[in-house]
Amino acid sequence: MVILLKKNPEQKQLDNLIHWLKGLGIETKFTVGHHSTILGLLGDTSIVDIDLVRALDIVENVMRIQEPYKNANRKFHPDDTVIDVCGRKIGGGNFQIIAGPCSVESEDQIISVAKSVKAAGAGLLRGGAFKPRTSPYAFQGLRGTGIELLLEAKAETGLPIVTEIMDASHLPLFEQVDIIQVGARNMQNFELLKELGKTNKPILLKRGLASTLEELLMSAEYIMAGGNKNVILCERGIRTFETYTRNTLDLSAIPLLKELTHLPVIVDPSHATGLSRLVKPLSMAAAVAGADGLIIEVHNDPTKALCDGPQSLTPAQFEDVACDIGKALDVIGKKIG
Amino acid sequence: MVILLKKNPEQKQLDNLIHWLKGLGIETKFTVGHHSTILGLLGDTSIVDIDLVRALDIVENVMRIQEPYKNANRKFHPDDTVIDVCGRKIGGGNFQIIAGPCSVESEDQIISVAKSVKAAGAGLLRGGAFKPRTSPYAFQGLRGTGIELLLEAKAETGLPIVTEIMDASHLPLFEQVDIIQVGARNMQNFELLKELGKTNKPILLKRGLASTLEELLMSAEYIMAGGNKNVILCERGIRTFETYTRNTLDLSAIPLLKELTHLPVIVDPSHATGLSRLVKPLSMAAAVAGADGLIIEVHNDPTKALCDGPQSLTPAQFEDVACDIGKALDVIGKKIG
Amino acid sequence: MVILLKKNPEQKQLDNLIHWLKGLGIETKFTVGHHSTILGLLGDTSIVDIDLVRALDIVENVMRIQEPYKNANRKFHPDDTVIDVCGRKIGGGNFQIIAGPCSVESEDQIISVAKSVKAAGAGLLRGGAFKPRTSPYAFQGLRGTGIELLLEAKAETGLPIVTEIMDASHLPLFEQVDIIQVGARNMQNFELLKELGKTNKPILLKRGLASTLEELLMSAEYIMAGGNKNVILCERGIRTFETYTRNTLDLSAIPLLKELTHLPVIVDPSHATGLSRLVKPLSMAAAVAGADGLIIEVHNDPTKALCDGPQSLTPAQFEDVACDIGKALDVIGKKIG
Amino acid sequence: MVILLKKNPEQKQLDNLIHWLKGLGIETKFTVGHHSTILGLLGDTSIVDIDLVRALDIVENVMRIQEPYKNANRKFHPDDTVIDVCGRKIGGGNFQIIAGPCSVESEDQIISVAKSVKAAGAGLLRGGAFKPRTSPYAFQGLRGTGIELLLEAKAETGLPIVTEIMDASHLPLFEQVDIIQVGARNMQNFELLKELGKTNKPILLKRGLASTLEELLMSAEYIMAGGNKNVILCERGIRTFETYTRNTLDLSAIPLLKELTHLPVIVDPSHATGLSRLVKPLSMAAAVAGADGLIIEVHNDPTKALCDGPQSLTPAQFEDVACDIGKALDVIGKKIG
Repeated sequence: MVILLKKNPEQKQLDNLIHWLKGLGIETKFTVGHHSTILGLLGDTSIVDIDLVRALDIVENVMRIQEPYKNANRKFHPDDTVIDVCGRKIGGGNFQIIAGPCSVESEDQIISVAKSVKAAGAGLLRGGAFKPRTSPYAFQGLRGTGIELLLEAKAETGLPIVTEIMDASHLPLFEQVDIIQVGARNMQNFELLKELGKTNKPILLKRGLASTLEELLMSAEYIMAGGNKNVILCERGIRTFETYTRNTLDLSAIPLLKELTHLPVIVDPSHATGLSRLVKPLSMAAAVAGADGLIIEVHNDPTKALCDGPQSLTPAQFEDVACDIGKALDVIGKKIG
Repeated sequence: MVILLKKNPEQKQLDNLIHWLKGLGIETKFTVGHHSTILGLLGDTSIVDIDLVRALDIVENVMRIQEPYKNANRKFHPDDTVIDVCGRKIGGGNFQIIAGPCSVESEDQIISVAKSVKAAGAGLLRGGAFKPRTSPYAFQGLRGTGIELLLEAKAETGLPIVTEIMDASHLPLFEQVDIIQVGARNMQNFELLKELGKTNKPILLKRGLASTLEELLMSAEYIMAGGNKNVILCERGIRTFETYTRNTLDLSAIPLLKELTHLPVIVDPSHATGLSRLVKPLSMAAAVAGADGLIIEVHNDPTKALCDGPQSLTPAQFEDVACDIGKALDVIGKKIG
Repeated sequence: MVILLKKNPEQKQLDNLIHWLKGLGIETKFTVGHHSTILGLLGDTSIVDIDLVRALDIVENVMRIQEPYKNANRKFHPDDTVIDVCGRKIGGGNFQIIAGPCSVESEDQIISVAKSVKAAGAGLLRGGAFKPRTSPYAFQGLRGTGIELLLEAKAETGLPIVTEIMDASHLPLFEQVDIIQVGARNMQNFELLKELGKTNKPILLKRGLASTLEELLMSAEYIMAGGNKNVILCERGIRTFETYTRNTLDLSAIPLLKELTHLPVIVDPSHATGLSRLVKPLSMAAAVAGADGLIIEVHNDPTKALCDGPQSLTPAQFEDVACDIGKALDVIGKKIG
Repeated sequence: MVILLKKNPEQKQLDNLIHWLKGLGIETKFTVGHHSTILGLLGDTSIVDIDLVRALDIVENVMRIQEPYKNANRKFHPDDTVIDVCGRKIGGGNFQIIAGPCSVESEDQIISVAKSVKAAGAGLLRGGAFKPRTSPYAFQGLRGTGIELLLEAKAETGLPIVTEIMDASHLPLFEQVDIIQVGARNMQNFELLKELGKTNKPILLKRGLASTLEELLMSAEYIMAGGNKNVILCERGIRTFETYTRNTLDLSAIPLLKELTHLPVIVDPSHATGLSRLVKPLSMAAAVAGADGLIIEVHNDPTKALCDGPQSLTPAQFEDVACDIGKALDVIGKKIG
């Protein structure tokens, strides 16, 4: 970290700053110029709060040299992390499609969807048991029962299951879940992240609606700092002024995240746009841009879905989409599964 | 709710839609025009997911008539809600300043700050015990001990205390806390909101960084639907492209929220901008724009604060700010406390 | 357009509204419900300012049925517009790469770049003569001389040329330019758009940094309303809170614009991100998502470029990118040129 | 400017960079550290394009020390600029209200409005002659005739007039206009700014919908670099995800701009929100936050306004608002006019 001091900084404040940094185990080195003085920080600056330093009266500006994340940082772990879920590999050249309904609704529904997405090439089954809904009056998911139904679908088809957690206290219900999803609204639910860091489950961490890539990586760092290195990042659209789509899918996040981190990066085109007819072009785009997988909503009867139905594909549409994803992957020498 | 159907909608999908609405207890009424058909919905449409309807193939557009929130809606509760916290009233013409440090650090610190903010006119004491920090390596707060120190400061000064909760499982520690704060990052932590709805504690609910006013009101609705009507809303800046300030304070939210809801609305100028020198002008602005109170960071030694220090005022600066807030309130016939 | 009136609207205001609509040639039709009255508008509502109506005291909400653009609307012109520029076709299944330097700097530079991009598959040459720069102290382009150099490069290579206009008064200098570009900052320079509408030159219209898709289409409508139907739309990134990239490329704009309009849609990955290493993955992504072309910055010596250098590829890098774009196009049955 | 180089930068690129900087008249000074090398730039770095430097392969990060604007910079001109328009002073403790209709419609209308806003305390008259409208089919203003009608209203009332220019070629029509307004959509119409820099007219420069404060100041710099120092800045709301208001008024811009520049700063609450009922609270807020003036829409018959009517106050409402603005100004020791 490099701190640019204002001209003639107050000595007492400067002493306080240096003393505080020393307390954090960081040495400082001065370079005095005509108009300003530069303070170089030597040591592990990942623990220094850059906003705090920037706001000091004596500070003109601050620049990081080190990124504030370590476990998630590709500089310290050059090789791709590969997450193996019951034999389905994600990352390091391996590409998986996770598919399934927004909400688990019934045994028939989830087993029927699971069979069709498996037939079309999906490697994992998704389904919402706990549902974060904007309105308290909307359907909140089948909760524990939903997880049981997912496990039945897994037993029937062999597909590992992915489902969202909303509170750390529900963790005991997730013991047999293969990948635990953290939703966009909980990306900075730090108490939940800490608890997930104590498990060894793969965590699918969705980017928050207004979160920068650095904040996403810092949330991954929360999980990894606890000892759980199995984190999969997911770009699912950010909030912008454009109202035509529900969110704006940020596909440049894929190549950028692949530079910054060794963790797998997948894309959720269904939630990003809220429009099922955009799933195909954006899935193909994500594939050629280097994503390690996709998570796609598929429903056996979209018009009857209890939530988010309209962003879901039918099984037949999904088959068509999966086929075109396969062709797109060919271009970059990858394949599904 | 009014649904505009596309020209020649598929009959089966239309039947499904009407059947689904009927299941929710909602009647439909058709108006057929030249280019399109309008479907009027009669009944309690607050339970209808507008995004779901908008995304159906047969639907061109949808408009709400009813707002999706009921308990928080001024239409159904025209009178201002007044929250009484140990005799300090917030709302309905009553204006309170909540002041104190970002983090509780020690007994000396919190008692000293409490005394000075009380002397300057603050009616309640704030202080962070559980701290949501972007980095897992940053100071996370004194947690339970922090709450104990706040209670000591309350015993010493008589000021009721406000502190943030990060997880429902910590609720037992908050039994003697006077107002429980929900931070911006947890505004849509629905499981937490539900648990808070079961208490009778006043809840200070901060607007999320990328949350619309309607979403803020829906989160209030989560708490109120559980039975707890004591919700105070807090505007604290939204995330925009401007990088000069940490967030962009949206002061138009004050008069708008006062129209839409009967709940008190306060403003946090310290977190909104991240710059203590902006606290005075924005506090005065919030006061004349109709806010029911302010929450302001005050620290006994800003250069040493463990977190967010630079957005904190010193006690002397706070006294000056409080004095000017008082003058601004005069203009609209209110006073502090 | 459907107007939802408030309960018990003031009769005088309602009469004013209906009278005003009549003056615009629009008939109104009432549907009275329990809680509200719906006013259906019959006629050409593209001339009705929806914001004006929405803000009337008696109006609860408004919904458009017709889009406010006509010439650009696919509903009225189902077939793709194909723009033919000296034999290079854009749109309707034809895909072109426009390549060249940010700024024209010298005869040697522009001819050398033109030759190498042609060899690699580019169908048109771009180069800035008039440069919109944030700072008045930055290089503003060679202006008229820049256009002359572009024409020399065209004479040498046969590549049609694309260059940006900043003011209608410069139009005489653009007489031999093949495609006139309107930059993002001038997307709503309506006087310029009107003048361009009087020419018959193909216009490359870039989306503004904070412009919605509808606003982009309305700006195209300005040009088309003047008689010039040769408009090419260009997605080049929108401004969001993310600071890692200069802008956020909105690739969902491609399939959405292709639905809404018959005009060709191209993508500028160089300006969108400001990072040349992202040009390849995002170009491939744009290609499979259905874009009709790309506009890519290529420079013969990026470290010496007078402006925007770092987002430029070298000719060798461009050759590699163009080759991979070709492979990506294969997937959807298109080819370059 | 301070450049942080990557570890082991390629020597040729480094030489290129230093050579290029030398060509701009800038000396460089190295400080070699363990992990990185810092390059300090000495000289006038306002001409260095920071984005260009940041994007070089050998550069890790860059920090500015000097702001990129000079004429507009308070560091070089500590005293407030006071703009005197026919005796009405703006800035340096002087506060003016500019009021009038969105569009000039007729002699009767503009004279009637001018008289009533003058009576209520407005010091200047605004009115749109050239109207930037999103749709080519919407009313585009009376143009030249509109300016003539404004001049008649000035002759009748003595109020100096403010009106918007949309193209430099219209400048001859603005010879008798007292303040020329540049609208938000033209804030980065650099050719227009350059032409206005050659006049000596006061320019009211509105912040663009997606423009940072630094960009606003750079646009002022364009005008000032041409020799015209009479620039008034105007905050009028920025585009965000919130749809309840047309834009989000950024009131923290007032104290920040007053720090960064000596130019007067006024606020447009009418366009910022698009809702006339918010004009009063936000005007009062702007006044206490330190604005040097306000520009407010007032119409003699809002329901009949040809454009933007709903954000306009009636003369009676304006009188009430002006009275409360006066009270708010009392608090900070200012008064209207």
